[in-house]
Amino acid sequence: MEFLVQVDVARVFELPAAEREDVITREKARGRELLADGVIRHFWTVVGKRANVGVWVADDAEQLHAILSALPIWPWADIEVTPLITHELAAEAA
Amino acid sequence: MEFLVQVDVARVFELPAAEREDVITREKARGRELLADGVIRHFWTVVGKRANVGVWVADDAEQLHAILSALPIWPWADIEVTPLITHELAAEAA
Amino acid sequence: MEFLVQVDVARVFELPAAEREDVITREKARGRELLADGVIRHFWTVVGKRANVGVWVADDAEQLHAILSALPIWPWADIEVTPLITHELAAEAA
Amino acid sequence: MEFLVQVDVARVFELPAAEREDVITREKARGRELLADGVIRHFWTVVGKRANVGVWVADDAEQLHAILSALPIWPWADIEVTPLITHELAAEAA
Amino acid sequence: MEFLVQVDVARVFELPAAEREDVITREKARGRELLADGVIRHFWTVVGKRANVGVWVADDAEQLHAILSALPIWPWADIEVTPLITHELAAEAA
Amino acid sequence: MEFLVQVDVARVFELPAAEREDVITREKARGRELLADGVIRHFWTVVGKRANVGVWVADDAEQLHAILSALPIWPWADIEVTPLITHELAAEAA
Amino acid sequence: MEFLVQVDVARVFELPAAEREDVITREKARGRELLADGVIRHFWTVVGKRANVGVWVADDAEQLHAILSALPIWPWADIEVTPLITHELAAEAA
Amino acid sequence: MEFLVQVDVARVFELPAAEREDVITREKARGRELLADGVIRHFWTVVGKRANVGVWVADDAEQLHAILSALPIWPWADIEVTPLITHELAAEAA
Amino acid sequence: MEFLVQVDVARVFELPAAEREDVITREKARGRELLADGVIRHFWTVVGKRANVGVWVADDAEQLHAILSALPIWPWADIEVTPLITHELAAEAA
Amino acid sequence: MEFLVQVDVARVFELPAAEREDVITREKARGRELLADGVIRHFWTVVGKRANVGVWVADDAEQLHAILSALPIWPWADIEVTPLITHELAAEAA
Repeated sequence: MEFLVQVDVARVFELPAAEREDVITREKARGRELLADGVIRHFWTVVGKRANVGVWVADDAEQLHAILSALPIWPWADIEVTPLITHELAAEAA
Repeated sequence: MEFLVQVDVARVFELPAAEREDVITREKARGRELLADGVIRHFWTVVGKRANVGVWVADDAEQLHAILSALPIWPWADIEVTPLITHELAAEAA
Repeated sequence: MEFLVQVDVARVFELPAAEREDVITREKARGRELLADGVIRHFWTVVGKRANVGVWVADDAEQLHAILSALPIWPWADIEVTPLITHELAAEAA
Repeated sequence: MEFLVQVDVARVFELPAAEREDVITREKARGRELLADGVIRHFWTVVGKRANVGVWVADDAEQLHAILSALPIWPWADIEVTPLITHELAAEAA
Repeated sequence: MEFLVQVDVARVFELPAAEREDVITREKARGRELLADGVIRHFWTVVGKRANVGVWVADDAEQLHAILSALPIWPWADIEVTPLITHELAAEAA
Repeated sequence: MEFLVQVDVARVFELPAAEREDVITREKARGRELLADGVIRHFWTVVGKRANVGVWVADDAEQLHAILSALPIWPWADIEVTPLITHELAAEAA
Repeated sequence: MEFLVQVDVARVFELPAAEREDVITREKARGRELLADGVIRHFWTVVGKRANVGVWVADDAEQLHAILSALPIWPWADIEVTPLITHELAAEAA
Repeated sequence: MEFLVQVDVARVFELPAAEREDVITREKARGRELLADGVIRHFWTVVGKRANVGVWVADDAEQLHAILSALPIWPWADIEVTPLITHELAAEAA
Repeated sequence: MEFLVQVDVARVFELPAAEREDVITREKARGRELLADGVIRHFWTVVGKRANVGVWVADDAEQLHAILSALPIWPWADIEVTPLITHELAAEAA
Repeated sequence: MEFLVQVDVARVFELPAAEREDVITREKARGRELLADGVIRHFWTVVGKRANVGVWVADDAEQLHAILSALPIWPWADIEVTPLITHELAAEAA
């Protein structure tokens, strides 16, 4: 299944600098793994925001939630998940 | 440039049936062209909504607006455009 | 997969009475089928609202959207879909 | 009576780690009791959120509030309660 | 059970005058009955609004919804229902 | 004059426990006085919320504000005040 | 009592031109009376809006509502009423 | 004085085509005059929206409102006006 | 020019008591000056809110902003400024 | 490309005074550079707000984001970016 996942991390900037840097470093490391594993299929930064948006792939909602709730940034992230379906026209054109 | 484009077409359902069918038919025809031309790179339907979300590609904002404002559904569409930037981690992994 | 599906049908009351009665009659007939088929697992009315909330079951988001977008009330319904995961404590207790 | 109860616990993550772990541990213990007693009839996690949604059963609103306001997480929980009525179609099909 | 019921009837003013007057006349007649029967315990108009707020009494949510959904104004009313519990201090003082 | 007064006290839970208990104790004591004096005519708790709703009586807005702004919980309370008028039907039935 | 009254009349522009002109003409006539009677103490237009804001004076909320609900524009007006109290500093300076 | 003026004209698309074309033609003609007169200093279209944003110059708020409320599109326009002040840094650099 | 200025000071109550009292004392002193100078023409408290609303007079937006941004409460104030124009009917009646 | 960039810096006022002054001083220095380089083409303060709005120029969204995310105030800024297109009438008049 494909999900549009919008992650706002503004709250992490309320942490003391050292703690924040640690969380962001671990988060980036994890992000690289998820990209390498194809879990994150498309990954963008939103202009002017401390936020990203991406297309994440998981077998189902359980698996996606397990991945998201294990992210280092999880306690401070505001996440919107939208299940996506391939548009009929895109399916046609595939 | 890549843009996240969310198009809500709920208003078109307030049209009389015949007029609505005509607009939707012309809109789908145009959608096929945009997919074929690579303007719409990714195209999804949002579960439970009379709306779609996609990644559209254009040289710049002018070109994107010209395409959107020429869509048959334009007078009834509520559109959100978010300029996207390839995330640093995705750029790294590319 | 289980989904929390909230359907607000206030807009259908803007239709002329005869047309509205026809849509609501066909919608109820379809509702009975979905309940009988187990697609709608739990089904409630929200107090004071021209709306219902239920737990719908589908193989995946595609199937759910196909069912929702074929409902007689679809053109006038405002639907919110929330993918649900069995809570860890409920899974434990199962 | 059945109630749809949506509990967002994001605020608890603003507590120091030790205090947070203690609250969450006690909250889970209490949750197991409520599930065992049938007070929580259905219990789900919302994908990507530090929140749960469930169907809670109580004699009336007083009893539900007494249970909710005694939860260990109560001081930091943002709760929405929606009284539910069995839909006429579900009542028919019962 | 006591419920705080806020009824906004602004939409009914979009009806043609004759139809509107008929609905409002029937609604007032029904309102008198509900007051006489003690279903509406307290009933106020909100200053400057085409809306009222009241304390309605019903055995349970089912009964309240049956009464509300049978109101002449129902198709055009936007209703908010909040289940109320006697405050502990008021219970003490009773 | 009658006012619908909705008081949300969620913020007070951000105080250290001892300070919070002191404020809540003094607030309850003051609440008992206001109930005894008939200033608070009806007083309810909102299900699932750290909030109450009541009908307060005062000579005019000045007097109401003087009472509210002297409450121990005042610095942390989010209050909505709606001036109420006896509905014409209730006045008729009185 | 003084009230801040914000009146948005955008909806009246959805009427056919002739009907709209009639309502606006009668509304202006009534406005002149209210200004002459001192009911409207201060009266402003909000820049760029089909709306006005003013300080209205009435014995109490009942009287204000009677005046507002008798306005020709009433069926199409969206009104916000905020009871005002002379600020302590202004009272001091008076 | 400089004002940031955001004009959303989505509502005009609810008019019958002929009437809409007439209003838009007259609006464009007026727009050319305002640009020529320097009343509109900067003028942009918002990507994907039936809306524009610009910097308008007027002696004061009265004059700006007189201009806006005389626009052909006025009855259907939703306008936000933000008074602007040259930033201290921009004033410095001037 | 006249401006409707709504100042919410709820955030100042998050300060330690001593610091808060100092800010409020200095703010009141400054308020007295502004009233005496006629900068604040009308000044009210909003019932139940830690907020005030007033009509402020300044030569232009620059001057108003200079006054507001120099207020002792400025760092914690949430301010809404609405430029006001004397209504045509009030101008007539003047 | 031109972008309308609205920067709200209210959060920076939650910092201890010394740290806040340091951030604001460095932010102003950077602002002067951006104005000198023509990156910020127009720059205004919003009346009554701890916020600014400006027209920023960058080759594309990537470049704009790189500039914004390197601002000293970045961790505490709430930024809205709207891509702008020269209005057809302004292009005509150019």
